[in-house]
Amino acid sequence: MRTFRLDLGPRSYPIHIGRGLIDRADLIAPQPAGRVAVVTNEKVAPFYLDRVLRGLAHLAPVPVVLPDGERHKTLAGLDPIFTTLLRERCDRDTMLVALGGGVVGDMTGFAAACYQRGVPFVQIPTTLLAQVDSSVGGKTGVNHPLGKNMIGAFHQPCSVVIDTATLGTLPDKELSAGLAEVIKYGLIRDAAFFDWLEDNVDRLLARDDEALAETIERSCRHKALVVAEDERETGARALLNLGHTFGHAIETGVGYGGWLHGEAVAAGMMMAADLSHRIGWISERDVSRIAGLLRRARLPVAPPPIDPERFLELMAVDKKVRHGRMRLVLLKAIGQAVITDDVPPDALRQTLTQVIS
Amino acid sequence: MRTFRLDLGPRSYPIHIGRGLIDRADLIAPQPAGRVAVVTNEKVAPFYLDRVLRGLAHLAPVPVVLPDGERHKTLAGLDPIFTTLLRERCDRDTMLVALGGGVVGDMTGFAAACYQRGVPFVQIPTTLLAQVDSSVGGKTGVNHPLGKNMIGAFHQPCSVVIDTATLGTLPDKELSAGLAEVIKYGLIRDAAFFDWLEDNVDRLLARDDEALAETIERSCRHKALVVAEDERETGARALLNLGHTFGHAIETGVGYGGWLHGEAVAAGMMMAADLSHRIGWISERDVSRIAGLLRRARLPVAPPPIDPERFLELMAVDKKVRHGRMRLVLLKAIGQAVITDDVPPDALRQTLTQVIS
Repeated sequence: MRTFRLDLGPRSYPIHIGRGLIDRADLIAPQPAGRVAVVTNEKVAPFYLDRVLRGLAHLAPVPVVLPDGERHKTLAGLDPIFTTLLRERCDRDTMLVALGGGVVGDMTGFAAACYQRGVPFVQIPTTLLAQVDSSVGGKTGVNHPLGKNMIGAFHQPCSVVIDTATLGTLPDKELSAGLAEVIKYGLIRDAAFFDWLEDNVDRLLARDDEALAETIERSCRHKALVVAEDERETGARALLNLGHTFGHAIETGVGYGGWLHGEAVAAGMMMAADLSHRIGWISERDVSRIAGLLRRARLPVAPPPIDPERFLELMAVDKKVRHGRMRLVLLKAIGQAVITDDVPPDALRQTLTQVIS
Repeated sequence: MRTFRLDLGPRSYPIHIGRGLIDRADLIAPQPAGRVAVVTNEKVAPFYLDRVLRGLAHLAPVPVVLPDGERHKTLAGLDPIFTTLLRERCDRDTMLVALGGGVVGDMTGFAAACYQRGVPFVQIPTTLLAQVDSSVGGKTGVNHPLGKNMIGAFHQPCSVVIDTATLGTLPDKELSAGLAEVIKYGLIRDAAFFDWLEDNVDRLLARDDEALAETIERSCRHKALVVAEDERETGARALLNLGHTFGHAIETGVGYGGWLHGEAVAAGMMMAADLSHRIGWISERDVSRIAGLLRRARLPVAPPPIDPERFLELMAVDKKVRHGRMRLVLLKAIGQAVITDDVPPDALRQTLTQVIS
């Protein structure tokens, strides 16, 4: 087992990575203060819910099984969690456990942030995307018909327990979606990791456990360092949004659930790379390397057909807008991202019209 | 104008009390960072919305008018706020202004806590109850069909602007409801203020501006001191819940909106007083004085008919339950409340069966 901490003062917490951790009560609930509720969805439940419940049996855990899918990630979609907690008389000492992918983690974390004005929660991410990104860092929330993740809270988990064995049941498409966020860390701050991924992407697709554990640890360490420096995204944390302003526009444009988040981010990173090249920051060769790695990871490198004007509108809703100016994360090099609110509108339009088609 | 601060380190904020403050942009938005949205309801809007919008005209404020009433204080009831903010492209620098009573303040504060994971907000309370209690201290949230205020956040406003002139349009019933929370401060921590209220309750009912301003200031100062000491209610802040566990049971039992919150708290405080007397803590004379002052403030001194077993169940859902034990705030004397989780069940049942009937 690999363990390290996300350092946030009184809100610090450990991240554990290893095979077979999913029923380890000593990691999930070392100091139970009260009730435990395990929130998962109907897709994950048949694989792992019983094992988690058995591991926590001494705490008489309450299960909550949500419907599967991003389209249920809404305020109303939280109601099964709240209703169960209230029916079961769960008080302020209750701890929630999020067992599943990014949607389950975001919803459970937000429910934990709001239930009785805040209870603790633990992340047990079961998709690669959740393991390398969304389970770490305390961003929680739900979508609104007019924008993704527009309603939420910063609420840190009290631990993250990553069982790499859960990747054995993950559909190929979702494994690839997780790799998009992995490749992102290489692009924004670790050129050596990008190189390593070029050498190892086939091992990852073949689900080599050692390669996956290494990938998850390196990704989580990057995430933990960035979040420790800027928990509430007033500065450097925004670098993690490489590809996300484009990606969120894609997700909203095609309707939630039409594209996986990781797929939209992959296409979004290609758009960011294209724009970075257009304004003279990265070379054509860099753009090709990025496209090449994404393709080898079986990820899309272009967005779906969305009218450029509509695409711009969708981008403008994104939270990355500050003071009315659109801020984008672009690449100075592979391994070096910067935030800019000074993108020439013409260059952006060219990216939109030429990449979308 | 009377001004003092609630001292919470980086989250400290001023509380301003005076006549005609409602359009004072220098108090409401002294350092605007971005857009401003003013949230109110259809009952308050005709009286004050235009004045507030005019006062903030240089900031092009966006109005949001909610339906009136506690029954709209739900997760779904927040949607008009989020939809307007998103339609108007309000970004993370947007500030919300809550213009109205406790329901508007709680909902707007919670919407501010969640919108894009948190934006600032200002309270402009227009009911006595909101002015002396709910606008100060950062408790925000909405109700769930199974329990009041069960979903919410601690989110402090960046200022509280109390215009005593707004009490001129307040229905008598709501003025009385506000006095319940005022009397509460006397009961829990200020015997001299309780005496003063016995001498001045008629001036307050006659809406004497000086007496109201004095009452609001003394109440807010008590609230500010308690919150500064225990922002997240891990200890002494729970004293402010005198009468509230009983009161929330009443509100849930009769259905939201059937009783005003202050009315339920008044009956709840009488139940707490009755129980405190039963276990030998306060005298029969104290109970009579409390009943006398509540009656003179035109408040109920007994709950509506609710079956005692059902009443107990409703009480058990309250957030004040910790580790499965019911915690109640009771009185050692007028001016001295204590928190106890050691109430003899028989005494509680006697209070429920004898006071309800």
